[in-house]
Amino acid sequence: MVDTQALIQLKDFYTAQLLEDTLPFWFPGSIDTEYGGYLLMRDQDGSLIDDDKAVWIQGRAAWLLATLYNTVEPREEWLAAAKSGIDFLSRYCFDTDGRMFFHMTRDGRPIRKRRYFFSETFAAIAFAAYARASGDPEAANRARELFTLCIRYAEGEAPSAPKFTDTRPAKGIGVPMIMINTAQQLRETIGDPRCDTYITKWIREIETHFVKDDIRCVMEQVAADGSIIDHIDGRTLNPGHAIEGAWFILHEAVYRDNDPQLIDLGCRMLDYMWERGWDTEHGGILYFRDVYHKPVQEYWQDMKFWWPHNEAIIATLLAHLVTGNEKYAVWHRQVHDYAYRHFHDKENGEWFGYLHRNGSIAQTAKGNLFKGPFHLPRQEWYCARVLEKYIKQR
Amino acid sequence: MVDTQALIQLKDFYTAQLLEDTLPFWFPGSIDTEYGGYLLMRDQDGSLIDDDKAVWIQGRAAWLLATLYNTVEPREEWLAAAKSGIDFLSRYCFDTDGRMFFHMTRDGRPIRKRRYFFSETFAAIAFAAYARASGDPEAANRARELFTLCIRYAEGEAPSAPKFTDTRPAKGIGVPMIMINTAQQLRETIGDPRCDTYITKWIREIETHFVKDDIRCVMEQVAADGSIIDHIDGRTLNPGHAIEGAWFILHEAVYRDNDPQLIDLGCRMLDYMWERGWDTEHGGILYFRDVYHKPVQEYWQDMKFWWPHNEAIIATLLAHLVTGNEKYAVWHRQVHDYAYRHFHDKENGEWFGYLHRNGSIAQTAKGNLFKGPFHLPRQEWYCARVLEKYIKQR
Repeated sequence: MVDTQALIQLKDFYTAQLLEDTLPFWFPGSIDTEYGGYLLMRDQDGSLIDDDKAVWIQGRAAWLLATLYNTVEPREEWLAAAKSGIDFLSRYCFDTDGRMFFHMTRDGRPIRKRRYFFSETFAAIAFAAYARASGDPEAANRARELFTLCIRYAEGEAPSAPKFTDTRPAKGIGVPMIMINTAQQLRETIGDPRCDTYITKWIREIETHFVKDDIRCVMEQVAADGSIIDHIDGRTLNPGHAIEGAWFILHEAVYRDNDPQLIDLGCRMLDYMWERGWDTEHGGILYFRDVYHKPVQEYWQDMKFWWPHNEAIIATLLAHLVTGNEKYAVWHRQVHDYAYRHFHDKENGEWFGYLHRNGSIAQTAKGNLFKGPFHLPRQEWYCARVLEKYIKQR
Repeated sequence: MVDTQALIQLKDFYTAQLLEDTLPFWFPGSIDTEYGGYLLMRDQDGSLIDDDKAVWIQGRAAWLLATLYNTVEPREEWLAAAKSGIDFLSRYCFDTDGRMFFHMTRDGRPIRKRRYFFSETFAAIAFAAYARASGDPEAANRARELFTLCIRYAEGEAPSAPKFTDTRPAKGIGVPMIMINTAQQLRETIGDPRCDTYITKWIREIETHFVKDDIRCVMEQVAADGSIIDHIDGRTLNPGHAIEGAWFILHEAVYRDNDPQLIDLGCRMLDYMWERGWDTEHGGILYFRDVYHKPVQEYWQDMKFWWPHNEAIIATLLAHLVTGNEKYAVWHRQVHDYAYRHFHDKENGEWFGYLHRNGSIAQTAKGNLFKGPFHLPRQEWYCARVLEKYIKQR
């Protein structure tokens, strides 16, 4: 990928996929003009299979639309669509304690609330991107309040009802990861003086507690002191998730004038988890692995999910552009080709979510409680943008 | 299967599998002589992959060992092994509120407690079977107390912390099913005057609220009034589970002098869910289906799990023996042949737990938090016993 022409072609591909294939699958058809928000639980042909609304995905979709308005083109329809999601989140998705629900009916009645605070992190970036797009100071306030709430949970100052006893305390890489990304998004949209210090702290936690250089591995969970918990759950790795963490850190490296230590950390994480996650037999990223190659309890551990491929496409491209290392260009081509060949629905647009290990489709839905317009359009948007930047620098 | 000789051969097969293949994989090697209970999280070759103890499986294993002592042969080593599990359950697995934990360390420290009361139902049948085997009145008391506690939860008199809001109340077939089986076990071991009335009530609930004759279906969950909840979760069927419910009801029919209405109900449930669950392309029972043939949210919905095959082997055999209908003998042969061909580990004994749709092995563990010595040995034990009874009647 050394020649600029190849980079331009790739940028054009991602832009076209985003604007002509992925986005039209969802919008404007999925905007709920009656209650606000989006109707996103759709089968492969776009037919609605459920009119419930997942709060994670409502926030992520509003973030996407506002971000496109902010960074691609100020299209009024994107801003209006973002507002629809922001209005639904504001009106219906907050509980009286300031926490958010997880799963709503179409007309905004709560079905389920969870102890995890991910509804709040996705709403925080949605409100922040929308505040930047609209200039609405109330949305910016809401984003900062949600960020404050998330920090309290991430730092353990506001413990939620525990799922486990104190017998074997564990912590997951998901919390510092999501918080890094949330802070990065706030910084790039409305700004927040807390971001840099916290990002440094969370990256340090990942590096010291989750990255294991001696065994070339990024753990998904560890004990409070960072040691490996040698039981089934503690040994379970999620390569695609760690690879997502790798590109959050490479993104931070670029923001910090190509900080060499952060570049090294991000690339180590990518290297370790590519080695552990890439399926050398069938291609694609395996979902779970065991750190010591023992059986994983989750029986579907060898399936191929869409989102680890989106994250690996970003991580390998960014690693290549930042380091110039040709290895990453080769990996990028491998995962890009696998993903667009197996996940992309050439007939209806967008990607299928779930493949068997051998690449056949396990389930046809494009949207459900956990899948919607996020990882794929974010990948296409992010890759096009980062390519544009590096092409200009040449 | 009309001739007695075929029935005898089948009985001998199940007996030999149970005593010479399945049981030796687990016992005596898995008895924890240091802390009591069993070390059951094992890979295909029997090597231990985790020394934690799942309370469900500790109870189920103790039930199995005591039941073998009660019904197959009064071997002292089975009684002693059952006592080991009973002691571990009694000493470590009860919380101060009388509820039980879900997941323990080897030395009896709790890791997780769940809102579901299935630890308690499995402990109830374990204490009951052990009381019958040992004559220990304290174990019988404990079984009855646990049964009382389970009834309170099943009848909604002791609501646990809710997972969902009241927006869309749903109830699962799992509760009346497990309670029918728990009551049947208590009745057959220590006796309990409450059993018959409650069993009648729970069967009636299944028949009126979960069995849908118009669409030939048994629902996995329904609204409080028995109506179908037309959202993804509400539409999701678990054919193997409903087929397990079918044989609990056929078992009750036999107990009640071949009650024709119960035979009809059990056979309808089996018919409907065989039609929906049997994979006509690859063979085996598919894990989840959607009542209206829409995509199931669980991406691993087309996998083949061991236990639905154990339940279908029992249900089809029992339906054949009770009705004489040759269709059920054909189905029994189909599922028996599929299961012993694909799940059985001819090298090390026992069955693998998780196959891809095409029958290849997805994960090699024989035991984990959810799999242990229960569905397979129960199937082999139950089929051998029911065959023996019908052979004698000829």
